[in-house]
Amino acid sequence: MVSVGIIGGTGYTGSELLRFLVNHPKFDVEFATSRSEEGVEIGEYIPSLRGLVDDEFVSPDSSLDADLVFTAVPHTKAMNYVPSFLERGIKVVDLSADYRLPFGVYEEVYEVEHCDVGRKAVYGLTELHRREIKKADLVANPGCYPTGAIFSAYPIKDDVDRILFDSKSGISGAGAKPSSASHFPNLDGNLNPYKVTTHRHQAEMKMVLGGEVHFTPHVIPVVRGIMTTTHVFGCDVDDVKGRYEEFYSGCRFIRVYDDVPKLSSVRGSNYVDIGCFSQEEGRVVIVSAIDNLVKGAAGQAIQNANVMMGLPEDLGLKAIPLSP
Amino acid sequence: MVSVGIIGGTGYTGSELLRFLVNHPKFDVEFATSRSEEGVEIGEYIPSLRGLVDDEFVSPDSSLDADLVFTAVPHTKAMNYVPSFLERGIKVVDLSADYRLPFGVYEEVYEVEHCDVGRKAVYGLTELHRREIKKADLVANPGCYPTGAIFSAYPIKDDVDRILFDSKSGISGAGAKPSSASHFPNLDGNLNPYKVTTHRHQAEMKMVLGGEVHFTPHVIPVVRGIMTTTHVFGCDVDDVKGRYEEFYSGCRFIRVYDDVPKLSSVRGSNYVDIGCFSQEEGRVVIVSAIDNLVKGAAGQAIQNANVMMGLPEDLGLKAIPLSP
Amino acid sequence: MVSVGIIGGTGYTGSELLRFLVNHPKFDVEFATSRSEEGVEIGEYIPSLRGLVDDEFVSPDSSLDADLVFTAVPHTKAMNYVPSFLERGIKVVDLSADYRLPFGVYEEVYEVEHCDVGRKAVYGLTELHRREIKKADLVANPGCYPTGAIFSAYPIKDDVDRILFDSKSGISGAGAKPSSASHFPNLDGNLNPYKVTTHRHQAEMKMVLGGEVHFTPHVIPVVRGIMTTTHVFGCDVDDVKGRYEEFYSGCRFIRVYDDVPKLSSVRGSNYVDIGCFSQEEGRVVIVSAIDNLVKGAAGQAIQNANVMMGLPEDLGLKAIPLSP
Amino acid sequence: MVSVGIIGGTGYTGSELLRFLVNHPKFDVEFATSRSEEGVEIGEYIPSLRGLVDDEFVSPDSSLDADLVFTAVPHTKAMNYVPSFLERGIKVVDLSADYRLPFGVYEEVYEVEHCDVGRKAVYGLTELHRREIKKADLVANPGCYPTGAIFSAYPIKDDVDRILFDSKSGISGAGAKPSSASHFPNLDGNLNPYKVTTHRHQAEMKMVLGGEVHFTPHVIPVVRGIMTTTHVFGCDVDDVKGRYEEFYSGCRFIRVYDDVPKLSSVRGSNYVDIGCFSQEEGRVVIVSAIDNLVKGAAGQAIQNANVMMGLPEDLGLKAIPLSP
Repeated sequence: MVSVGIIGGTGYTGSELLRFLVNHPKFDVEFATSRSEEGVEIGEYIPSLRGLVDDEFVSPDSSLDADLVFTAVPHTKAMNYVPSFLERGIKVVDLSADYRLPFGVYEEVYEVEHCDVGRKAVYGLTELHRREIKKADLVANPGCYPTGAIFSAYPIKDDVDRILFDSKSGISGAGAKPSSASHFPNLDGNLNPYKVTTHRHQAEMKMVLGGEVHFTPHVIPVVRGIMTTTHVFGCDVDDVKGRYEEFYSGCRFIRVYDDVPKLSSVRGSNYVDIGCFSQEEGRVVIVSAIDNLVKGAAGQAIQNANVMMGLPEDLGLKAIPLSP
Repeated sequence: MVSVGIIGGTGYTGSELLRFLVNHPKFDVEFATSRSEEGVEIGEYIPSLRGLVDDEFVSPDSSLDADLVFTAVPHTKAMNYVPSFLERGIKVVDLSADYRLPFGVYEEVYEVEHCDVGRKAVYGLTELHRREIKKADLVANPGCYPTGAIFSAYPIKDDVDRILFDSKSGISGAGAKPSSASHFPNLDGNLNPYKVTTHRHQAEMKMVLGGEVHFTPHVIPVVRGIMTTTHVFGCDVDDVKGRYEEFYSGCRFIRVYDDVPKLSSVRGSNYVDIGCFSQEEGRVVIVSAIDNLVKGAAGQAIQNANVMMGLPEDLGLKAIPLSP
Repeated sequence: MVSVGIIGGTGYTGSELLRFLVNHPKFDVEFATSRSEEGVEIGEYIPSLRGLVDDEFVSPDSSLDADLVFTAVPHTKAMNYVPSFLERGIKVVDLSADYRLPFGVYEEVYEVEHCDVGRKAVYGLTELHRREIKKADLVANPGCYPTGAIFSAYPIKDDVDRILFDSKSGISGAGAKPSSASHFPNLDGNLNPYKVTTHRHQAEMKMVLGGEVHFTPHVIPVVRGIMTTTHVFGCDVDDVKGRYEEFYSGCRFIRVYDDVPKLSSVRGSNYVDIGCFSQEEGRVVIVSAIDNLVKGAAGQAIQNANVMMGLPEDLGLKAIPLSP
Repeated sequence: MVSVGIIGGTGYTGSELLRFLVNHPKFDVEFATSRSEEGVEIGEYIPSLRGLVDDEFVSPDSSLDADLVFTAVPHTKAMNYVPSFLERGIKVVDLSADYRLPFGVYEEVYEVEHCDVGRKAVYGLTELHRREIKKADLVANPGCYPTGAIFSAYPIKDDVDRILFDSKSGISGAGAKPSSASHFPNLDGNLNPYKVTTHRHQAEMKMVLGGEVHFTPHVIPVVRGIMTTTHVFGCDVDDVKGRYEEFYSGCRFIRVYDDVPKLSSVRGSNYVDIGCFSQEEGRVVIVSAIDNLVKGAAGQAIQNANVMMGLPEDLGLKAIPLSP
């Protein structure tokens, strides 16, 4: 068995990690930390886990040991934990943004100083970077929007003029803390475009895809899932769908098909569903669906951890989408 | 024209008062107060009113004059405003709980001291207390749950053994401030029974109905509306529906029919829809629907103000339900 | 008083026309037709109108007279009613697609033969075609998507390279008849891009805007409203917002502002809210919000009828948005 | 391995059976039938299962063999399949209502003639009837409402005067076929009490609980889950919660606690969460939550099948609730 720990167990990403790890055949949860809920039984705090996790949240300042640690804390926090784990030979999957970008880009986009500049990390879209992940001690788990977006455009990225991602996300991406944006009367019956030309995740997309990349996110009145409507201009590929099928052949979690994907067809699972491939003069539309908390966060993190530990990629990730 | 003012213009009740008052043919909004948003243009703060209300929120401490004032602030706050208005000959419709109950009951139920004990107020379920309202200077506007519940049971209250109100409310009743209860991921796909035997509104229901009255509220994943499922035991009435039709005949805002009412059939309007009247051995079920922000708050307040000023009861309240 | 009739009173457009006409100070509803519900009291069929409309639906085959008729039936049906009304001097606002496009384009896009080719109609985006509407006997009321889209791009249409409308619509646009798309478990927690490069409304947009126009519609889990995210490429305008403010100055129902509009800020009303105006290298994003059943259908139809009858444009259309 | 078959694979119950059986360590799906979708690949019809189930639906008329069969077809249909399976030594878990009630009661309540009168079946609320289920060849899987209701009242059933179940169900209980009740604009923003004193499931509740039992179901704008608010009158028990804890001790799927349960805490899982236990003069309120498609249908069916085959009760049922 591999012992794993979670830094930041009370957020949605933390609880989603726990949901998968509780039934993982090779990973044992050694600890989950929370500063505010220290000493509280995990199953009391997350009622869906009642009876399943008897342990208590521990302080992140206590002495923590494990073979691998998931850091599920906000950016700028993670970079304070990562170095000490690595120095003690503990592998890390970081779910924050702290190690995703070149450090110069990071400091510009996130407008903070990085305290661990120079650290070597592997950006971990598992299906695209499997070989590097296998050898990595530190994997930067991609953002939720970039995951849905990059997979939907990668196979044709070098044969197009311009890509526009018009993304629609469930509100769980904004976290477990109530806010004006997550206030039910504000979101129900509405949808909210935000940071329409300035979202930070755009930098990840540009880093991986290159070329002219535009991105506009929306929050929709849905809890889980990101649907990305990918508008591609000047696409010079004959059989777009064929290109995707070939490119993703053998990828257990990526399903390519004709129809438009549905969020419910991936809900609660690690799948990326890609479909549509509709064409008109000058434009191709591709649509992808992921669960933002799974393939967009906790699921891909475990997938990466599996690869880092030399285990089958899908271990503990066989949850079937909850539909309806 | 009658000049009216609003104490507490930024809450849902305040903005709903404005929605109706802007088009009211006889009421002129003289002021709307807000301590936190003083100086902010009303239409900037409430985007649905953009272009319709150019005035700014004023401080509640400024000198305020009007013929009638709506106090739309939380209980314990309202009682600080009411006396000075009344002393200056300004009529008041208080939308808080401060003047609804006998003062002794109030202090017990709300666990606070009342600073205006002895003040004479009329409890204002308009259709039941029209005559007293006409002569009143201070009307205590009923709670949202009691409005839906009392109307659904009043005509048979003296011919039953026991009444149980199982009420389902939209979350707007909890106000405009984000909270854990209103956090979209917590409410969507869920419903939340709360204070199942201890909600304060039960005291209003008992005050008006007498006898054995039980009440359990739930919040459902809906913005507006309260549906009350009224379970009546030991009912000794032959033609229940007939009793209601007769009792409410001539009431412009109360519609009695056979079907089960729908929230969408009253949404945005001042109607009380009452229906169902289903019977089995020992039990009758009656169902009522109101819009909690209209007949359950701002609409009934304006209806009461109309009566107090000698105007037709439905003036400015002709908004037709928004369905679908 | 002007007498008006409705062909097709049981759909969402028909009931929305009734909601506004019931309180319209100058229009009198003479009849509303329904083949399937002939003889049924309107208020029984549409419970939100109970007590407000006592008349019964009449057969569309009965003898019908009025000063102006709204045809709210599907395309291919409307063209069968329109000629006979016009011949008898009855003005018509047609809410179907039958008279919106040049007849050749219509027959190609809708893949049917038109039986009234050559008839002269005015395309009725009121704010853009007011002068022609004033003199028209037949106004083709625009589609819901084109209304939201065209207003969001018109003021800069001649100064851009390419326009992409990524639109998100409430499901009420699909009508009152249950379908797989409107099945609650299929839509809740989901959103559905459809006809992503082939929607018929694209032809209307191209007709009015000219140039390179792309359009992708989505259905979101919301009842009312269309939000259009307008991505404009190659825009050669310095002060985009200023251009819009100037262009729409004096338009009572068009509100231009900085923020991103919300569907709830126009819900139930005839407003078009336009905002955002966010810019990055190569792209401008503009966002518009309308209520698809009001400005996108019944409201604009009444606005056009007002203009045709020489009445103030906003008569009977003063309903304030229902928010929250 | 145990080979199992499904009669009726295209409904929500059928697809939910498949979701669990695909990962069940001891059950092998031999066949799933569908008359209308015969020959269609299961993963094409149920996109969430794409890539997981390559088989096609087969005709229910083809020759079908298995160790155990789940009949997931409507009542009156199931009784036509059950006898022939039993005669061939194939065990059956029937998810319809056909074998739940004494035959006389069944014919009265469902207003049809039963064609298999006299057949011996065991009513299968697993935790209450485990011993009989172990020896049964035919288990009648309980209704969704009775499952949530009976568990919430059983431990005190002999010490009360009267029980009233006010139940709130997600719409998935009404099936996969679109209807007026499931039409998004009809359900969103609404809730629908129906058959408020006449629902057929009441007969099951009375059969198991005895005494005075009332039941009123509502559909809420939620996909999955049933919350039952159980109002108990005349309860003569000192420590109600203690009674439940003791009664259900050792039941792996029943969790008893103080708080009010949430639907999201059982979503997608086989749990029954029971809590609240709030008391006032004359009344106790108990609240239970289940997933109607799991513990209320497919999950309990598999739990029963496990028991019938001598396997651990929770085999293949370890799915953790999906929250949020």
